[in-house]
Amino acid sequence: MPEKQDLGAPPGARALLLDTASAIMREGDVIDISLSELSLRSGLNSALVKYYFGNKAGLLKALLDRDWEAIVTSVDALVAKDGWSPEAKLRRHILKVVDTFYEVPYLNRLTMRVIRESDDREARRIADCYLSPMYRAYESLIGDGVAAGVFRPTDPQLFYFTVTGAADRFFSARLVLKHCFDQDTLTEALRDRYREHTLDIIMAGILAR
Amino acid sequence: MPEKQDLGAPPGARALLLDTASAIMREGDVIDISLSELSLRSGLNSALVKYYFGNKAGLLKALLDRDWEAIVTSVDALVAKDGWSPEAKLRRHILKVVDTFYEVPYLNRLTMRVIRESDDREARRIADCYLSPMYRAYESLIGDGVAAGVFRPTDPQLFYFTVTGAADRFFSARLVLKHCFDQDTLTEALRDRYREHTLDIIMAGILAR
Repeated sequence: MPEKQDLGAPPGARALLLDTASAIMREGDVIDISLSELSLRSGLNSALVKYYFGNKAGLLKALLDRDWEAIVTSVDALVAKDGWSPEAKLRRHILKVVDTFYEVPYLNRLTMRVIRESDDREARRIADCYLSPMYRAYESLIGDGVAAGVFRPTDPQLFYFTVTGAADRFFSARLVLKHCFDQDTLTEALRDRYREHTLDIIMAGILAR
Repeated sequence: MPEKQDLGAPPGARALLLDTASAIMREGDVIDISLSELSLRSGLNSALVKYYFGNKAGLLKALLDRDWEAIVTSVDALVAKDGWSPEAKLRRHILKVVDTFYEVPYLNRLTMRVIRESDDREARRIADCYLSPMYRAYESLIGDGVAAGVFRPTDPQLFYFTVTGAADRFFSARLVLKHCFDQDTLTEALRDRYREHTLDIIMAGILAR
């Protein structure tokens, strides 16, 4: 294998490849990318993909890791915050989920694809590192609020499906907007409207009366 | 083109091909099918796919039409029901959405795939025949309840994303269940729990207090 210097890798080349792959998936509404497009848009030699990630599957996995690590870190920090009420934590979390899907609308599809194409051991790693921590965070976020009488009794696992499912609709919204409403992009204004709407419905749905 | 008799087509062969394709997608958690598997499982000559649908893309489109026509017919009938309150109609609708995604968990992914692979004219047809009628039904279902003071003011388009997004999580739930909880299938018991949960959260989310 050549040294990365020989491939003309500038500092931050690995991160730039991931950023570019993310932008391509987001803009193109796809969970696949061509290495030639990645090379063209990043201005980097496509041999660097091989150098850093082995192959395209390795690149997809690295992007999954990048995106999920940011999410799990952020959720863990929220759960650990002192002095915040369960309601305040959940409100913040829901806002963040919508923002996250706006930034990485491909994430759910990418996760399911990588799990589907992985062997059992790798699927287990993804579940253990990313999905299970999310469930534990929900057990804590929801459990604390139920215990405090602020939330109605709610199954945290099922609630996780509700929240992420509703927020994830941003992903498929783009095609629907285009063909139903002749509106071509997911704008920040629409994201903000959807964030308020989601927060409103979900909080009213879980808060004790 | 040969006559369908020459291909050994029994009565109902077209419907059987669609039923079988639906079952393969549902069980395999895929939105693609191999014609050889379709032929094997249906017991029908794979030349019948060509006879009835032209090619695989035509088969996928016919399945989309079959599934969506059932949904739109059912929603239109619900909206038109006399003597039902907006709350009763919405409750019934939400139950039905969860049941539908349990039966055809591939539908959202299939719709997005077919739209993505269609020319503008065909994408417009799908939007006009299926997506737009759903939006109009939501405008009516939600608008009537808001006008009656039973529902809080709610954007029907955004609410459509919330409901279908939350219900659609059934689709991706299967892989998550398998790798996080060692539970291999979406059971009817889980569907029933998720249906109750979804109904509970969403109705509490929209009902005026």
